[in-house]
Amino acid sequence: MENKYTIGLDYGTNSVRAVLINVADGHQVSSSTYEYPSGVNGIILDEKEPLLARHNPRDYISGIEAVITSLLDKAGREYSILSDSVIGIGIDSTGSSPMPVDRTGCPLAFYERFKDEPNAYVWLWKDHSSIDEAQAITTLARKIRPSYLYKTGGNYSSEWFWSKILHCVHTTAEVSSSAWSWVEMCDWIPALLAGDTTPGKIKRGICSAGHKAMFHPDWDGWPDREFLSLLHPELARIGETLGRETFPIGEKAGHLCSDWADRLGLKTGIAVAVGGLDAHLGAVGAGIAPNILVRNIGTSACDMMISPLRSGLSDVAGLAGIIPNSILPGYYGLEAGQSAVGDIFKWYSSIISDKSSCSLNNSNSNMYEKLQTDASKIYPGVSGLLSLDWFNGNRTILMDQRLTGIVIGLTLHTSQAEIYRALIEGTAFGARTIVEHFEKSGFGIDRIINCGGIAYKSPLVMQIYADVLGRKMEVSESKETAALGSAISAAVAAGREAGGYSDFSSAIKAMTRVSGVSYSPDPEKTMIYNQLFSLFRNAHDSFGIKDNRLDMYALMKSLIYIKDEVSKSKKA
Amino acid sequence: MENKYTIGLDYGTNSVRAVLINVADGHQVSSSTYEYPSGVNGIILDEKEPLLARHNPRDYISGIEAVITSLLDKAGREYSILSDSVIGIGIDSTGSSPMPVDRTGCPLAFYERFKDEPNAYVWLWKDHSSIDEAQAITTLARKIRPSYLYKTGGNYSSEWFWSKILHCVHTTAEVSSSAWSWVEMCDWIPALLAGDTTPGKIKRGICSAGHKAMFHPDWDGWPDREFLSLLHPELARIGETLGRETFPIGEKAGHLCSDWADRLGLKTGIAVAVGGLDAHLGAVGAGIAPNILVRNIGTSACDMMISPLRSGLSDVAGLAGIIPNSILPGYYGLEAGQSAVGDIFKWYSSIISDKSSCSLNNSNSNMYEKLQTDASKIYPGVSGLLSLDWFNGNRTILMDQRLTGIVIGLTLHTSQAEIYRALIEGTAFGARTIVEHFEKSGFGIDRIINCGGIAYKSPLVMQIYADVLGRKMEVSESKETAALGSAISAAVAAGREAGGYSDFSSAIKAMTRVSGVSYSPDPEKTMIYNQLFSLFRNAHDSFGIKDNRLDMYALMKSLIYIKDEVSKSKKA
Repeated sequence: MENKYTIGLDYGTNSVRAVLINVADGHQVSSSTYEYPSGVNGIILDEKEPLLARHNPRDYISGIEAVITSLLDKAGREYSILSDSVIGIGIDSTGSSPMPVDRTGCPLAFYERFKDEPNAYVWLWKDHSSIDEAQAITTLARKIRPSYLYKTGGNYSSEWFWSKILHCVHTTAEVSSSAWSWVEMCDWIPALLAGDTTPGKIKRGICSAGHKAMFHPDWDGWPDREFLSLLHPELARIGETLGRETFPIGEKAGHLCSDWADRLGLKTGIAVAVGGLDAHLGAVGAGIAPNILVRNIGTSACDMMISPLRSGLSDVAGLAGIIPNSILPGYYGLEAGQSAVGDIFKWYSSIISDKSSCSLNNSNSNMYEKLQTDASKIYPGVSGLLSLDWFNGNRTILMDQRLTGIVIGLTLHTSQAEIYRALIEGTAFGARTIVEHFEKSGFGIDRIINCGGIAYKSPLVMQIYADVLGRKMEVSESKETAALGSAISAAVAAGREAGGYSDFSSAIKAMTRVSGVSYSPDPEKTMIYNQLFSLFRNAHDSFGIKDNRLDMYALMKSLIYIKDEVSKSKKA
Repeated sequence: MENKYTIGLDYGTNSVRAVLINVADGHQVSSSTYEYPSGVNGIILDEKEPLLARHNPRDYISGIEAVITSLLDKAGREYSILSDSVIGIGIDSTGSSPMPVDRTGCPLAFYERFKDEPNAYVWLWKDHSSIDEAQAITTLARKIRPSYLYKTGGNYSSEWFWSKILHCVHTTAEVSSSAWSWVEMCDWIPALLAGDTTPGKIKRGICSAGHKAMFHPDWDGWPDREFLSLLHPELARIGETLGRETFPIGEKAGHLCSDWADRLGLKTGIAVAVGGLDAHLGAVGAGIAPNILVRNIGTSACDMMISPLRSGLSDVAGLAGIIPNSILPGYYGLEAGQSAVGDIFKWYSSIISDKSSCSLNNSNSNMYEKLQTDASKIYPGVSGLLSLDWFNGNRTILMDQRLTGIVIGLTLHTSQAEIYRALIEGTAFGARTIVEHFEKSGFGIDRIINCGGIAYKSPLVMQIYADVLGRKMEVSESKETAALGSAISAAVAAGREAGGYSDFSSAIKAMTRVSGVSYSPDPEKTMIYNQLFSLFRNAHDSFGIKDNRLDMYALMKSLIYIKDEVSKSKKA
């Protein structure tokens, strides 16, 4: 039988990446990346508003053509793969990244009169200009629709759909009144490729709708008209344009239209899958299944599990999201996470690298190498340090974005590398808190598969995670799990008759695998980390939970005791 | 009337410094410094024992001649001052810095057979090789002589007299059995100049005896024979050689012997004052008086007050030392302190300066400049940070050397300069804790006079202290307060008939003054710091005091609240 291929398109923060995947075994034949040409590293900024971060939708369009033609070109030249063997395209993007569109789904950013108006562009996930609106939405929901917050972690975020639209309504009436609707990028691209971006016809994905826009079957879909009206009548109007249904990945958003098929050199009519959020598609590409926790560890960490829909879950306190069909159809998608992981390490690098006096080009990588080497030599407990990983708040299990980081145990002898290691350990303790919370909530974890930059780049961090969690850390073989997940979604959307798969279970089994590299816990280190973790939980519960006074003197003294004991035993 | 002069000799860690002072007004005519030639920067180290730090007593002797002849030479040449007008010499040194001597007071270090034995040399104050012995002394005292610890802060230190002797006994019997006695450097130099170092005849100072060697009139002097015997019979033997009495500064240790008078070009028979610890003589040089707190702020901070003997003080919980006549005769000398101040800032510089990749010579001073400038622009409260200054334990008021530093409030936006400022503020809160403790214990403070390196070198730190304490920070005019204090002690020892003073009160009044530079609190900043200080005290009492559970969640949230409020008001 002839090999079939699918394309996964992964829209990131600075670039779009495409991969060509062999449907039979998930092998990545080739890949291609396109850096968004607009703004600074692809991000449109505004000097007057440091919280603003936008994308130009033109970059998405020029990106599709650039990456797919280059991908097919390479595959044809190097492996004689014909573009006719491509049976589907799947798309994922960062989110929530919505943009205002007109009645036809044309981005307002393409209008001449809005070309200098950043609010008419794509509001990138990390745009935080809508903090006040997020607060207003949270406050109103707490008051009249508390259930709206239960599914997404207790607070509505400034990064999300309705906050951004409301901020636009508040600040740029000209844009908001010209917007027929708003569309997430991961929904708009599939519609574009399928040839019809009419807002009412777009097949919006449950991933972003459920986790970012308060869509849930429990209240029959989108937030109700009364709720939206109380925020602003304009929001209620937009709510009416979103369609009643949302769709899981693996469904067809449509078929590739002839126009785009010609531009890309693909067959007209092949499947275009419903789009989803990059984190969720990453879980698919990493091989998610019941009782497997997928951890996507990068600047922040996203923890994902799935649980069969028939289990009839109610809300689980402390989880950041529980949405039916949101990661995989047929399952609840469970999301937890840490608001900062790699970002903490990057922050620390910026603190310890003295930019004012040092201009060597390779200084940062030298420093990073040295830090890794030095930190890897430090035995658990001997630094006497304990850190709380709340440098960007706490997502799971406290859901409090305003909590701050803490470092305890500093002395005049504390070294640069000891602090670095303590910061890593802090994120490991945060991860263990999440893992234990999943299990306590009834979601048994048999395996942990890691993906994301940290999983591949930092053996030190992964080994510490294994030791702190006392569990084996597996690593996904693919380093492009989101793009692979999108390609898997495309294979399912194409269906068995086209050479794809009838369901995700068989597709994931065939197309994903873990790498040969894994990290096993050292039982001796785990024993020490068990003690430190119980101190971490004391600090965590004392600083993070109201009216919960714990013994901080005992914590201080225990840290010193552990330091002494471990140092002694390591000397002996 | 012809001008009279005294010489102050200040034996420091790396060098000895002499000043020639006009007795009439305290004016410093000239000064001279001699770097100890032995070891590394004057300190004898041992690769195998990183805690070891010794001085060579030969350096003290060669130092006397070098600094005094150069001083007199300069004074004669430039100001036509005749050495005949010098009426006395006063001496201070670091402490506790004892050394073993033979029956004549000759240092064992001068014996050929001990020339390579560091334990026969001067055990410098910062030698920490006697940690186990300090623990043993503390434990025994707690058990059978708890009062021995009340006067010196609850723990006997590894830096002190008996710990060092006991360690020598335990490790080098050959040295300890050859030692007829042990002498503090601040006692040995005056005896040397007076021409008789016989241990039983040395006039030992109450400063070091009281604060470092458990001498107190309450138990009739030195620790009793039973106590010392239980530690080691050798200690009891040494105890017998120390003489029954100790003496305050301003008394005559003796008269300059003809031998030394010839070598130095001074008149035979002029007064040599009883020696004391540099911190205490610094308080004298800074102008100590009842209700004046003198703060000597350098690597660590020493807080000193005096209170009339007639007030009949009992022990004051939480003060590091209360010794009759120890700072000035006729008063209780009260000592408190912070185990690290400048050392914390130096530690932070070492953490943030990336030595591995940066070799510019001026990088550190550049960095320091920038840090100062950036930190000075940060308004109180806006960083959201709070630090505990326990990087080297807490001396006053908790007296727990093993407590460790804490930084609360870290975020991904926290800057290098914000942490730096928070560390400074932490030491300021520590200082305020001490000041409030003095006042609560009945020692009213009308003025605070600062001396030591930080007082002169860091306007930023001093301004923060003024703002945090809500009090004016005065600065001693002399930058050599210890040497000046020794010269004042010499003027009192010389007495009125020789052209000096009959008492310290009139000598200090005439010979010391504060500089024109002082730092006044900004009431708006003090108001914010009042709020932060109350949070500091919560953290302080929660982490530092047993069974004292306070609301850390409220502390976390209050820090964020203050940050928001101040940021808003500063924007408006």
